Amino acid sequence: MSKEKKMVEDITPMAEDFAQWYTDVVKKAELMDYSGVKGCMIFKPNGFAIWERIQAELDRRFKETGHRNVYMPMFIPESLLQREKDHVEGFAPEVAWVTHGGEEELTERLCIRPTSETLFCEHYRKEIQSYRDLPKKYNQWCSVVRWEKTTRPFLRSAEFLWQEGHTAHATAEEAQTETIDMLNCYADFCKEVLAIPMVKGRKTDKEKFAGAEATYTIEALMKDGKALQSGTSHNFGTGFAEAFNITYMDKENKPAYVHQTSWGVSTRLIGAVIMVHGDDDGLVLPPVLAPTQVMIVPIAQHKEGVLDKAYALMDGLKADFRVDIDTSDKSPGWKFAEQEIKGIPLRIEIGPKDIEKAQCVIVRRDTREKQFVPLAELSTVLARTIETMQRDMYERAKAFLDAHMTEVHNYEELRRFSEEKTGFAIGMWCGDEACEDKIKDDLTVTSRCMPFDQEPIDDVCICCGKPAKKKVYWGKAY
Amino acid sequence: MSKEKKMVEDITPMAEDFAQWYTDVVKKAELMDYSGVKGCMIFKPNGFAIWERIQAELDRRFKETGHRNVYMPMFIPESLLQREKDHVEGFAPEVAWVTHGGEEELTERLCIRPTSETLFCEHYRKEIQSYRDLPKKYNQWCSVVRWEKTTRPFLRSAEFLWQEGHTAHATAEEAQTETIDMLNCYADFCKEVLAIPMVKGRKTDKEKFAGAEATYTIEALMKDGKALQSGTSHNFGTGFAEAFNITYMDKENKPAYVHQTSWGVSTRLIGAVIMVHGDDDGLVLPPVLAPTQVMIVPIAQHKEGVLDKAYALMDGLKADFRVDIDTSDKSPGWKFAEQEIKGIPLRIEIGPKDIEKAQCVIVRRDTREKQFVPLAELSTVLARTIETMQRDMYERAKAFLDAHMTEVHNYEELRRFSEEKTGFAIGMWCGDEACEDKIKDDLTVTSRCMPFDQEPIDDVCICCGKPAKKKVYWGKAY
Repeated sequence: MSKEKKMVEDITPMAEDFAQWYTDVVKKAELMDYSGVKGCMIFKPNGFAIWERIQAELDRRFKETGHRNVYMPMFIPESLLQREKDHVEGFAPEVAWVTHGGEEELTERLCIRPTSETLFCEHYRKEIQSYRDLPKKYNQWCSVVRWEKTTRPFLRSAEFLWQEGHTAHATAEEAQTETIDMLNCYADFCKEVLAIPMVKGRKTDKEKFAGAEATYTIEALMKDGKALQSGTSHNFGTGFAEAFNITYMDKENKPAYVHQTSWGVSTRLIGAVIMVHGDDDGLVLPPVLAPTQVMIVPIAQHKEGVLDKAYALMDGLKADFRVDIDTSDKSPGWKFAEQEIKGIPLRIEIGPKDIEKAQCVIVRRDTREKQFVPLAELSTVLARTIETMQRDMYERAKAFLDAHMTEVHNYEELRRFSEEKTGFAIGMWCGDEACEDKIKDDLTVTSRCMPFDQEPIDDVCICCGKPAKKKVYWGKAY
Repeated sequence: MSKEKKMVEDITPMAEDFAQWYTDVVKKAELMDYSGVKGCMIFKPNGFAIWERIQAELDRRFKETGHRNVYMPMFIPESLLQREKDHVEGFAPEVAWVTHGGEEELTERLCIRPTSETLFCEHYRKEIQSYRDLPKKYNQWCSVVRWEKTTRPFLRSAEFLWQEGHTAHATAEEAQTETIDMLNCYADFCKEVLAIPMVKGRKTDKEKFAGAEATYTIEALMKDGKALQSGTSHNFGTGFAEAFNITYMDKENKPAYVHQTSWGVSTRLIGAVIMVHGDDDGLVLPPVLAPTQVMIVPIAQHKEGVLDKAYALMDGLKADFRVDIDTSDKSPGWKFAEQEIKGIPLRIEIGPKDIEKAQCVIVRRDTREKQFVPLAELSTVLARTIETMQRDMYERAKAFLDAHMTEVHNYEELRRFSEEKTGFAIGMWCGDEACEDKIKDDLTVTSRCMPFDQEPIDDVCICCGKPAKKKVYWGKAY
């Protein structure tokens, strides 16, 4: 068996053990490593570079829509966390507590932010006096800590990286518009950059954010048929404003509470990319996302002129593409395998014979499709291939999602779905939390969201048979 | 008194009380706010935008020189922190300790990173096996915590933002080259972007980083004549490698310890910019750094055509400049004062008479110099003015630095310097820590650094009169 073959075969096939495949890919693609602290991971350069691309693309979108970045402290005094009742109940059981600074015991414990609503509220209370101060549209990029018992790289860890947007508005309408706009911003970004189609909808009250009036979510379908909650956007109404006394004087000079939202996505999106696009040979990155879009592999690089030509290609491309070159002393086959494991979307092969013919070979990571391309047309063909590949990857993921939508009309059908199928089950619900609980306990599927399209498919609840109020997507979730 | 006048007069004059001036400026320019947690500050949008510009400029320089970004956990287990003896002694007294996760007490305390040498060492120990794995050149942007008793915005706070580079090399020479290259990278960045001249040199052993073989520093001179340590670069030799057992097999297949460096700058640089360039009217940002370089203020904006023209100007400029427009309903005088307090480098005024003459007015923040500029030449003139202003700001700061360099030849001269003068005193030193201590205790000046130019100015120590070994810059420091 060749070394190259061996390298890929170290990845457990997806069909054999999906969880192990995932773990193998994150390690083999050198995205992360485990640290000495339980539940905390190390982002290695390849993994962090993906996050930097996500940050750059999202940050631009946030700023274009009038949001400004800030940075709040990582500590929340215990008394501040307790200000909003639902919020503290939701988060207190899973926070890390700082009790000592240097040699001294603190007079009040500080938790490390699991999310920063309380800090933003405290700040907004001071900053907002008049309607002229509204809206406030802030965002921050930071790390947060939630003391999780079971952790998995990128999907769930004690510390993770994310962004959290926090806004305050004069009216309920404005806050609702912001909540939905940011949900759509996330979904559009996931489509355009990550090539991932999202199911959008509202969370049930049981699943909503601690302290929110309404939580909206984007849910993606992984290749194992499980759903991954990939981003959320919350409308807080005036709940936090009342708890923190954030008021403003309106145009009639009357005091009123502000209406607030928050929204966030995290490094979990990297997990989504891996499980939506990856294959048995490793990671497959959509070209719009990929930190390196094109890897140049010189063939017979010891021969005169090959390296010069390969570097010249790179110089010609680097203004328009994120391009790298592998001139290590490994064999071309080994280099191909590495580029494939790391999910670099396109490979250019160029050797003496290609140079003679003034051509090179382009290979797509997703389809393995090879093209011989005249060097004079390389830049044009690359741009077109990137566009096609990005679209193809999205469409394949969309087709997979569409093929995993199952209507269920009664409990028996939902039971069969949960035992035999994966993906989303679309079924009606009476709105009673008891039915939601029963389904979760019996069938291991949970309500993922109530889609915006609420066109009913039945008139009774799949669980209890009483009149239905909501159409719900049900599924197994990460 | 006009409102505009009043707004500026809320800033305490520098000459009256420099510390209060500083506090007034950071508040009035809306750079930061205090948080409910002692010693932790909030970066407001104007302040964070400056940090984002610093990040963008430095990050580009790091990547161009082959460094890659990673992210390590924020927690360091107590046992890991203790691995390197000098390091733990230096940092343990000022770290924050996490003792509880959720409801449970941890079996081992975790400190929140005050700096991440120990985490990088632990990772490098696993990652590095062969000379082929070297060099490793990693960097991370993160927040760190040091439990400081006395805090000041940007200069010293319990939590602050920074970058920390950590590298591992095969040879001592390579590590030393990296250490000096990164010091120069910082100094060049400070000159080109922050318009701040830096004094460069090596720290004495007393002042070096806990665990380093040698620490190099860049020191800037504030307008009150005090020095601000603005960035450091450390050569660790093999000290950490020995403590953490980081070895590699060299080309002869023999095991050897790696040679390591680390280097960092923080949000303290924002403090440097304020205190090097600010004036009694507020902040003055160098145009290469400024998040907003140009503020357009329409005059008589209610008159027909003014706003249209002002927006058209902005549209024409925004591809090449970071430009904004103030169309609020405040008076032009109020807008001028705000732009000046916030330190926006250039202001464009445009009103009906200007439009008639197809011109506008450009006003420089630093000199208040006014230019009438034909609209057809606006872009060219702006570019030129930005270049001139950046250079002028650097040269003024450089002239101030040069004017505050005093040679001292004996203890009496150093004493007089410390009582009557500010800036740097250049004097010889025997190398004995006792002399360093005596000077610090008696005269409140400390050794800032030993400059690279070691051309002696005397042959005896200014303190004890014994033979001198080193030329040292002494000064009062933040």
